[in-house]
Amino acid sequence: MSTLLEQLRAGLPADAVVTDPDVLRSYAQDMAGFCEAGAAAVLVLPRTVEEVRHTMRTATELRVPVVPQGARTGLSGGATATEGCIVLSMLRMNQILEIDPVERIAVVEPGVVNATLSRAVGEHGLFYPPDPSSWEECTIGGNIGTASGGLCCVKYGVTAEYVLGLDVVLADGRLMSTGRRTVKGVAGYDLTRLLVGSEGSLGIVVRATLALRPQPPQQLVVAAEFPTMASAGEAVCRIMERGHAPSLLEIMDRTTLRAVNDMARMGLPESTEALLLAAFDSPEPAGELAAVGELCAAAGASEVLPADDPAESEMLLQARRLALVALEKVTGTTLIDDVCVPRGQLAAMLDGAQAIGEKYGLTVGSCAHAGDGNTHPIVCFDPTDEDEARRARESFDEIMALGLELGGTITGEHGVGVLKKEWLAREIGPVGLELQRGIKQVFDPLGLLNPGKLF
Amino acid sequence: MSTLLEQLRAGLPADAVVTDPDVLRSYAQDMAGFCEAGAAAVLVLPRTVEEVRHTMRTATELRVPVVPQGARTGLSGGATATEGCIVLSMLRMNQILEIDPVERIAVVEPGVVNATLSRAVGEHGLFYPPDPSSWEECTIGGNIGTASGGLCCVKYGVTAEYVLGLDVVLADGRLMSTGRRTVKGVAGYDLTRLLVGSEGSLGIVVRATLALRPQPPQQLVVAAEFPTMASAGEAVCRIMERGHAPSLLEIMDRTTLRAVNDMARMGLPESTEALLLAAFDSPEPAGELAAVGELCAAAGASEVLPADDPAESEMLLQARRLALVALEKVTGTTLIDDVCVPRGQLAAMLDGAQAIGEKYGLTVGSCAHAGDGNTHPIVCFDPTDEDEARRARESFDEIMALGLELGGTITGEHGVGVLKKEWLAREIGPVGLELQRGIKQVFDPLGLLNPGKLF
Ligand SMILES: Cc1cc2nc3c(=O)[nH]c(=O)nc-3n(C[C@H](O)[C@H](O)[C@H](O)COP(=O)(O)OP(=O)(O)OC[C@H]3O[C@@H](n4cnc5c(N)ncnc54)[C@H](O)[C@@H]3O)c2cc1C
Ligand SMILES: Cc1cc2nc3c(=O)[nH]c(=O)nc-3n(C[C@H](O)[C@H](O)[C@H](O)COP(=O)(O)OP(=O)(O)OC[C@H]3O[C@@H](n4cnc5c(N)ncnc54)[C@H](O)[C@@H]3O)c2cc1C
Repeated sequence: MSTLLEQLRAGLPADAVVTDPDVLRSYAQDMAGFCEAGAAAVLVLPRTVEEVRHTMRTATELRVPVVPQGARTGLSGGATATEGCIVLSMLRMNQILEIDPVERIAVVEPGVVNATLSRAVGEHGLFYPPDPSSWEECTIGGNIGTASGGLCCVKYGVTAEYVLGLDVVLADGRLMSTGRRTVKGVAGYDLTRLLVGSEGSLGIVVRATLALRPQPPQQLVVAAEFPTMASAGEAVCRIMERGHAPSLLEIMDRTTLRAVNDMARMGLPESTEALLLAAFDSPEPAGELAAVGELCAAAGASEVLPADDPAESEMLLQARRLALVALEKVTGTTLIDDVCVPRGQLAAMLDGAQAIGEKYGLTVGSCAHAGDGNTHPIVCFDPTDEDEARRARESFDEIMALGLELGGTITGEHGVGVLKKEWLAREIGPVGLELQRGIKQVFDPLGLLNPGKLF
Repeated sequence: MSTLLEQLRAGLPADAVVTDPDVLRSYAQDMAGFCEAGAAAVLVLPRTVEEVRHTMRTATELRVPVVPQGARTGLSGGATATEGCIVLSMLRMNQILEIDPVERIAVVEPGVVNATLSRAVGEHGLFYPPDPSSWEECTIGGNIGTASGGLCCVKYGVTAEYVLGLDVVLADGRLMSTGRRTVKGVAGYDLTRLLVGSEGSLGIVVRATLALRPQPPQQLVVAAEFPTMASAGEAVCRIMERGHAPSLLEIMDRTTLRAVNDMARMGLPESTEALLLAAFDSPEPAGELAAVGELCAAAGASEVLPADDPAESEMLLQARRLALVALEKVTGTTLIDDVCVPRGQLAAMLDGAQAIGEKYGLTVGSCAHAGDGNTHPIVCFDPTDEDEARRARESFDEIMALGLELGGTITGEHGVGVLKKEWLAREIGPVGLELQRGIKQVFDPLGLLNPGKLF
């Protein structure tokens, strides 16, 4: 142990090696429930690639596991500390190194906060689309680790689509560059895409080259209230079938609407079963907003309310972004599921999640990136009540089982971490699992990088 | 040998196992020059997944290498037969299994021709964007094998962006499904994306779930003539910098324009150094076309000619699609390079390629997916003249060296195959190469799948 600290300090500035137990405890976990953390040996906060390399070389030499961390907003336990590990927090590597409007790329360190990057590129008339609701906190490194989604994915795609190249420190401290600065490139296997979503288990991302887009016009939102989830799901299907390209298509159920009102007094309708938000960011959105409003009415909406201006639109989006936090206030703790199903199964999934909550006597509120079929049923429970906690975990699992049954996946964007390990095996089957383990072995033969995550 | 045929025939219909030497010879190569083929032992033409599995089980048992093939339009020798191999042609597995406008997906067998799929989804108001110029012939399996691009990538991205899930037969005959039918999903490492562009070296794709988009309006083209490549490159940079989203942005140089005219009497301007084609498929493209025309004029265009209608636009695109074939007619054979550079280096790359041609006393014509910086310098030579052939190969290599020097990649979309093997190692370096080989080993421990390709 003292060898570990000594060796780390030999290549790191004093303030980059932290052993204060209180600080260590505060870095022990991400935002996922039910993920027990071990006691880390040390927290390392590097500022340079060379410091990351030194840390990994030391870890390899002494066979100490390493848990990479961004802002710890993860919802699957992917950043949870394990016993005796080095917690490697990338928060201090937070420089935007380059923004190039001709190449439409940004080059960043992994600790850059998503919203910071979004604002910085916005000043150049550019747009970095991936926008998890946690964007004011989460880092680009964490977004790459989890292959994050967000609200505008339905039109612009997820993080994976925007990562052109990476610099990665491998488990043994070697530095590798993947991908490129160019828009296209197919030289060899796509290691960049393999690393995106690998949850810190294959290497430490120390630099990323990201693709940007021109900034679209500000979006305008239409909101529609539905008497049933089935009619809201029907509206989503018709909107997508008719070839619309909303920049956002989100659902909140009644439980969620109430929770958001309770927290933020937003005046959202509470008597409706499902509120659908659709936005368009085209130069002339009026026609699309009207057409979507009509499709909602035809599907059974009781009210269709176009937001009159960008400010009102932004307020509705803010309500949606608050959903997770608001539901957490209901009972103190939540388990946030992340099941993605075919669009046609959206209502079946959301109604099913509610029924599962009723069966277990728990509140389950749902919001969803409806256009992508990506649902977040959120199980509210009191963690001090042992039986309630057990029922929460069981409903969480039953929700995933339903998702698989409906042709979906156990995780649309939050990742596997420790929370869904058993479920990954169920979803991808033994052959896929064997290959995934084989790949892990190639990158990290000693199993030091984020052990116990994924599988 | 007779054991091989016997065992293959035990699980395959008679007409699926072909040994006629003339037929074998006709399946020996793709469209790349300088790739010597070995004599295949047998050609297998399966119709079902089970037949593919039987073939791979047999290959593994008898340790016979397998070369997967689509339509053999590849330009890097990725489908070249090796001595004693089984050529596994997927052309008969050509069914479109499903087109779903609500989920916006298609499920297809690998032998479906790109243009056939495009037309079929068009009938549902849908759009499968990846459009290599060879689209009337090349297959979806080959597109996935090479991670193909095309003309509309500059707006819509390449094949990788459209593959949601795959069914793959592994080297030992096991069947694996990767990915999903849903829009999003992050369960485990992204094996789908790893397989896209793997050039038949990791598994046989037997089914693909593809993402579709709503069909955009028909595009309108503006053409601009430039007195120098530098001014054309400047126009490309300004167009992208100003945030335009052309659905196509292509360049042809003077040599290419002449060759297309000679072949197809298209009446393209021959006195210009570079013809830039820009297209927009937005609902109201007039404003964008005018703005881009102005940027071209400001960059030094001598003429700006908006196409007046979709038919004229289509004629210009047809000219562009003919470029490769037309240049082949100049001397009988070509070596087609595929170097992708940052946009800002486009003119340096294209001027450099021409200078390399002059240095070696050869005609080099270039076209480029200019918006992506993806250039195709095409070296024309007489293959019966040994010295000319040597000079062709040397200029081809020098063009790649220049691409790397300018911060680019040796292949934007055609892949590595056998033609660029040494160059892959140069581009990705020893650490990357070691990991790539490790991945190959995990999928194909006996090294039977497309041996000698990539590395
Ligand atoms: C209120 C709230 C709303 C959310 N909304 C969304 C949403 O809309 N969409 C969505 O997708 N997610 C959402 N999330 C989940 C979470 O914010 C994302 O997963 C985010 O990408 C995590 O980023 P982070 O910086 O906090 O990473 P962390 O949680 O610290 O880490 C995430 C994973 O990445 C790995 N990692 C981090 N940095 C690196 C690195 N440099 N190199 C290698 N591996 C690394 C970690 O080991 C871990 O496995 C939400 C979370 C909250 C709390
Ligand atoms: C005139 C012309 C224009 C072209 N224009 C373009 C262009 O604009 N953009 C572009 O990207 N390319 C272009 N190409 C190159 C070529 O058409 C593409 O690479 C195409 O994707 C190859 O498809 P194919 O069916 O002919 O595959 P093949 O050439 O038969 O095979 C390509 C690779 O994929 C592998 N493969 C094929 N099927 C499978 C399968 N089912 N499972 C596993 N592996 C498989 C093969 O082993 C090989 O490595 C052009 C070629 C020509 C001749």
